[in-house]
Amino acid sequence: MTPLRHFLGTQGLSREEAEALLNQAEAFRPTVVENKNLSILSGKTIVNLFFENSTRTRMSFEVATRRLGGSNLNFAASGSSVSKGETLIDTARNIQALKPHCIVVRHASAGSPSILARSLDIPVVNAGDGFHEHPTQALLDAFTIREKLGKIEGKRVVIVGDIAHSRVARSNIHLLRTLGASVAVCGPPTLLPPNPEILGVDHAYRLEPLLPEADVVMCLRIQLERQNRMQIPSLAEYSRIWGLSSERAALMKKEAIVLHPGPINRGVEMDPEVADGPRSVILDQVTNGVLVRMAVLAKVMS
Amino acid sequence: MTPLRHFLGTQGLSREEAEALLNQAEAFRPTVVENKNLSILSGKTIVNLFFENSTRTRMSFEVATRRLGGSNLNFAASGSSVSKGETLIDTARNIQALKPHCIVVRHASAGSPSILARSLDIPVVNAGDGFHEHPTQALLDAFTIREKLGKIEGKRVVIVGDIAHSRVARSNIHLLRTLGASVAVCGPPTLLPPNPEILGVDHAYRLEPLLPEADVVMCLRIQLERQNRMQIPSLAEYSRIWGLSSERAALMKKEAIVLHPGPINRGVEMDPEVADGPRSVILDQVTNGVLVRMAVLAKVMS
Amino acid sequence: MTPLRHFLGTQGLSREEAEALLNQAEAFRPTVVENKNLSILSGKTIVNLFFENSTRTRMSFEVATRRLGGSNLNFAASGSSVSKGETLIDTARNIQALKPHCIVVRHASAGSPSILARSLDIPVVNAGDGFHEHPTQALLDAFTIREKLGKIEGKRVVIVGDIAHSRVARSNIHLLRTLGASVAVCGPPTLLPPNPEILGVDHAYRLEPLLPEADVVMCLRIQLERQNRMQIPSLAEYSRIWGLSSERAALMKKEAIVLHPGPINRGVEMDPEVADGPRSVILDQVTNGVLVRMAVLAKVMS
Repeated sequence: MTPLRHFLGTQGLSREEAEALLNQAEAFRPTVVENKNLSILSGKTIVNLFFENSTRTRMSFEVATRRLGGSNLNFAASGSSVSKGETLIDTARNIQALKPHCIVVRHASAGSPSILARSLDIPVVNAGDGFHEHPTQALLDAFTIREKLGKIEGKRVVIVGDIAHSRVARSNIHLLRTLGASVAVCGPPTLLPPNPEILGVDHAYRLEPLLPEADVVMCLRIQLERQNRMQIPSLAEYSRIWGLSSERAALMKKEAIVLHPGPINRGVEMDPEVADGPRSVILDQVTNGVLVRMAVLAKVMS
Repeated sequence: MTPLRHFLGTQGLSREEAEALLNQAEAFRPTVVENKNLSILSGKTIVNLFFENSTRTRMSFEVATRRLGGSNLNFAASGSSVSKGETLIDTARNIQALKPHCIVVRHASAGSPSILARSLDIPVVNAGDGFHEHPTQALLDAFTIREKLGKIEGKRVVIVGDIAHSRVARSNIHLLRTLGASVAVCGPPTLLPPNPEILGVDHAYRLEPLLPEADVVMCLRIQLERQNRMQIPSLAEYSRIWGLSSERAALMKKEAIVLHPGPINRGVEMDPEVADGPRSVILDQVTNGVLVRMAVLAKVMS
Repeated sequence: MTPLRHFLGTQGLSREEAEALLNQAEAFRPTVVENKNLSILSGKTIVNLFFENSTRTRMSFEVATRRLGGSNLNFAASGSSVSKGETLIDTARNIQALKPHCIVVRHASAGSPSILARSLDIPVVNAGDGFHEHPTQALLDAFTIREKLGKIEGKRVVIVGDIAHSRVARSNIHLLRTLGASVAVCGPPTLLPPNPEILGVDHAYRLEPLLPEADVVMCLRIQLERQNRMQIPSLAEYSRIWGLSSERAALMKKEAIVLHPGPINRGVEMDPEVADGPRSVILDQVTNGVLVRMAVLAKVMS
């Protein structure tokens, strides 16, 4: 396995690298189940450099860090030198000068983590950059699919929602295809990318035809501000046509599963009966997020 | 002693349970005095899920957690998925999926901690819910009274202020009566509950008649916004009639003590001479808050 | 060495005390270089009581605390009891009642740390108070000068910028003079104090005459809001006359160095070529900040 210096995206990640991370995450499971902490990152400090708020993702990285025996420094952009006009690179170089061992970055601008990776001497992990990538989310989704269905190779995954503006969709498409799945995207034409086939995926504007063949349906969160920009007609109409209702879920194979990156708009992307029903693995995704982040942190700092 | 799965309120807490907690808090005192940390919660993570700001209460729980060897994850509602429209239960279930061991919750809605306790598999501790309860505050008040006066049984406690809208008052009334004290409430008619006798307390609109018999006077904080809602005529008038001035404090028994949950509006609820005088045990309350929170955390996670 | 109970400013600090702190900071360097943590502050809690936002300084104190084996409680003023009208001393006494071992305070009012030091029983460290002092910044600047130039005695230091309103300038002037340097200040007349000679420094309104003799040029950050108050004509004019351009830097001695407390307004106080060039020791200042804060924390809690 080639060394992973940073973890910036799933695009370009080899199948070998991806599977090694999934296997490492699986190897960490007993640690969590038996409520133990390791000492792999003992004495190591990981900075959470979050320019966008994300309590969930930050907490998941924090829990992963502690399980490995490391500690966190939290940097929240509001009220910081960022608001004093400092450049991203100057901020990051100043943080690096405190001698931490890794930076986990979330930023509204696509490509920010790559810029930092080129400017810094310590590993950079992408916790979400604009519309570009959210690779640890894709890794936890893949891990959950493998856990529930036994494998990813040959599975059919349908991603529903705002594909064009979703870093979750992009990271998942790259990773799931690398791992041998076939992927279809679905949503209103305004929320699909102009040429979905460039990404190596099928597409459809209606959900029903895709459901009988799906092993996995991943519903993306509708960003409510999109509605104001007239990219979707109304939440009611979105829900009526693209929401995963109980009726639509009944079209799926018996063993097919439902994912959502959270937080859910109940009654919009999916009905509560589906979100809380037997197909839903949404809370398993959250639990697994800690395992895959442990694997990523352990890898980049190894 | 019956197992305390959660700690949601003092209403319904048995005298046996309450005294066990006070005794446990007392047993933890040498740990703090000798500046030691225990390992009772080693490897355990307590989430502070605060939907209302409360730096003091959060810090007290944090200090208590560390004294027991545990660690905290802080969740502040601002900027979190809560502002993205997620339900309280979804937020809490997502946090639970990170596999922490206890959730300490503060929320503006009465009953929120009970709702979480029914939805989660881990212990829930109420750090204040709306006008309902603030049970660890009552526990630290009772602990401080017992410390200073030797016992609670048979003591006369006068609570002054906005009784109707105070979770501190409600939790104290339940707990102190359970522990054998007699309680009187005092304040302007607009700030007393419609039928105080339902709570098992006496009431009066003037403070002077209650002072000579009081062993404890607990002044509540006036929420300044109440004034705008015309529930008190003015801060000056409140202070003149219900404020604990040096002259009024002189009416109290020699050994009687004065409590306040903080933060104090000096010159409104009490004069600085009283707040800083020999009767005041206000800073002892803060110190004791760590001890009772240690007892509660140790109990619910035992 | 006399015991340092608090660390409130560099004014009045003796040369012996200052050099002992610099030597202690130097003695901590191998700990950081070899990535070890000490146990000097094991079981000790340091409260960061920040009434002004300062992500950098807070993080530096946090890193220093951990290197010494201690832990932090972070108190951010927004949303705290401060906004409920509590006095500074009441807030600090309440925090002290939680039994921490040191308070690091940043506050917009000059003299606040001294007020706390008189009111509290635990050590107080000044992390910046109004226009008054920022003594750990001066200590890291002196440490960096000594590291790069071998000694401070006899060196010529030029401080450029808003001297009148800069706690960094004041703390540096006191400390550097105590350590034997000669100091000159430079800037627009509106940003120089009325009688600079009272501080024991030379002054000039133009930078060029000072540069050939300078061993150190310290550029201060221009607070952008000053411009609105008409204290500087425009950022462009400030930069043109007082900015450290490559051309001006070329007037400096070959071995002279350039400091900046950060965050830099690139192109205002100095050109990027200078900030990133061979004379710049700006990131060394950040790294050294951890060492001197370790020394201060270890000293006041010894």
